[in-house]
Amino acid sequence: MEKIDRVAIIGVGLIGGSLGLALKKAGFASEIIGIGRNRESLEKACELGAVDWVTTDTSAGVKHVDIVVVATPISVIFEIIPKISPLLPSRCIVTDVGSTKQKIVEEMDLLPINFVGGHPISGSEKRGIDAAREDLFLDATVVLTPTRKTDRHALQVIISLWENIGSHVLEMDPKEHDLLLAITSHLPHIAASSLVEIVSTCKHKDVPLLLGKGFKDTTRIAESDPILWRDICLSNKEVIVKVLSKYREIIANFEQLIARGDKEQLTEGFSRAKKWREKIDEIFIS
Amino acid sequence: MEKIDRVAIIGVGLIGGSLGLALKKAGFASEIIGIGRNRESLEKACELGAVDWVTTDTSAGVKHVDIVVVATPISVIFEIIPKISPLLPSRCIVTDVGSTKQKIVEEMDLLPINFVGGHPISGSEKRGIDAAREDLFLDATVVLTPTRKTDRHALQVIISLWENIGSHVLEMDPKEHDLLLAITSHLPHIAASSLVEIVSTCKHKDVPLLLGKGFKDTTRIAESDPILWRDICLSNKEVIVKVLSKYREIIANFEQLIARGDKEQLTEGFSRAKKWREKIDEIFIS
Repeated sequence: MEKIDRVAIIGVGLIGGSLGLALKKAGFASEIIGIGRNRESLEKACELGAVDWVTTDTSAGVKHVDIVVVATPISVIFEIIPKISPLLPSRCIVTDVGSTKQKIVEEMDLLPINFVGGHPISGSEKRGIDAAREDLFLDATVVLTPTRKTDRHALQVIISLWENIGSHVLEMDPKEHDLLLAITSHLPHIAASSLVEIVSTCKHKDVPLLLGKGFKDTTRIAESDPILWRDICLSNKEVIVKVLSKYREIIANFEQLIARGDKEQLTEGFSRAKKWREKIDEIFIS
Repeated sequence: MEKIDRVAIIGVGLIGGSLGLALKKAGFASEIIGIGRNRESLEKACELGAVDWVTTDTSAGVKHVDIVVVATPISVIFEIIPKISPLLPSRCIVTDVGSTKQKIVEEMDLLPINFVGGHPISGSEKRGIDAAREDLFLDATVVLTPTRKTDRHALQVIISLWENIGSHVLEMDPKEHDLLLAITSHLPHIAASSLVEIVSTCKHKDVPLLLGKGFKDTTRIAESDPILWRDICLSNKEVIVKVLSKYREIIANFEQLIARGDKEQLTEGFSRAKKWREKIDEIFIS
């Protein structure tokens, strides 16, 4: 594969900043350019060595680059890529890190650009360049969602970008990605936020003293960026609505088992969850 | 307060074993006796220094003790305390560590014993003596639920037991305890188990690769002991059923906001949860 000279990262927050740090460390490109609106974040990204130089002028930033990675909330991906599309060098590859894929990929496939949809399964409830870490994507799964329109060479370049920084690339149909992530990621976020909601409406003064480690771990992700999650929910809404409804059914089933005092089924339900969850632990530890 | 000579702990698992370790370290009693059915756990508790001697013979174990702590699943608390009641020395105090309180306290108040209901808000998804830690209750809240029948001196002794090992005692009405814990602990457990249930029914081979740190933290507590949780659910069922139904309403509300694409309310909902969750983090860090 040819040498990559310049990579522009639009949005130097947790994901963009971490990607910059990892790409610099791996020596993937000779120059990494940080593009954003917030001068302070851009300067911080420079100081940390996540990027070589920065600009708030998107058109100046994407000139002469080989790859543009858009690492912004999903609503900004929809705004910014059509805007930069006419400014890009002809062989430039555009990729993103959005947590939903079908709508993004559909829309980007209509533009005259070389697009590869991407989603690193890695993150944190923290946000912003201050939370960036060069190992955020090490051993993480990165889903890429090529379509019939996707250029095979562009796909190979983006695979190599992630593999260079230690991620495991998984190719998947965008629709399938959105269905699976609704279950593994979007649902848990809403479930955790709803747990916080119900506890926060309980005004008893001692509530904070009654929150154990279980509650804290279970709801940690409710601290994530609201705008990011609003965009995720709205760009995968049909699927998420179905998954939430299924989740309510499972909760209602527990409710019925408890109400009728069904010892056996209740033990069976908790045991099944325990067993499956332990299996997953093993996969992750290995 | 008079010196405590002997404490018997019935059930030397995670909670009983950790309590033994902490009481030994604090020098709270001159002798700690471990009582249980599983010889292997009892021997391990001895080896670890959580107890001074052990027996599978409950009546031998509780002879001449000042305090009996019952650290078993709730269904065993209901079985064992009435059984040992006639065997106890006259001034002996009985306490428990059950995660629900109203039904336990009601039943124990009918017995001719000196009972103080207790619940340390501390635990782990792990179980058994191997997971025991002498600092499990350090800085943890321990709720005690005295009733009109509770002897004031007995209450003081149990307060001093927990304070000696660094716990913060909170006195609370048993009914109030069960209502609040249904929200802060019982609900999160069922929510997490239901998340695991929905993911486990999804048979796509790549699912394990798509589970990020968010999913893992959110569902960690689903690994807890199924029998323990069956007992908790059944001994607080009226309240838990109501709380689960309220939780389904909150999920249904998110569903509606997403279905109708209500950007503003969705941002507001996630922001409210984020803000409250961050406030809780501060309380815990301090």
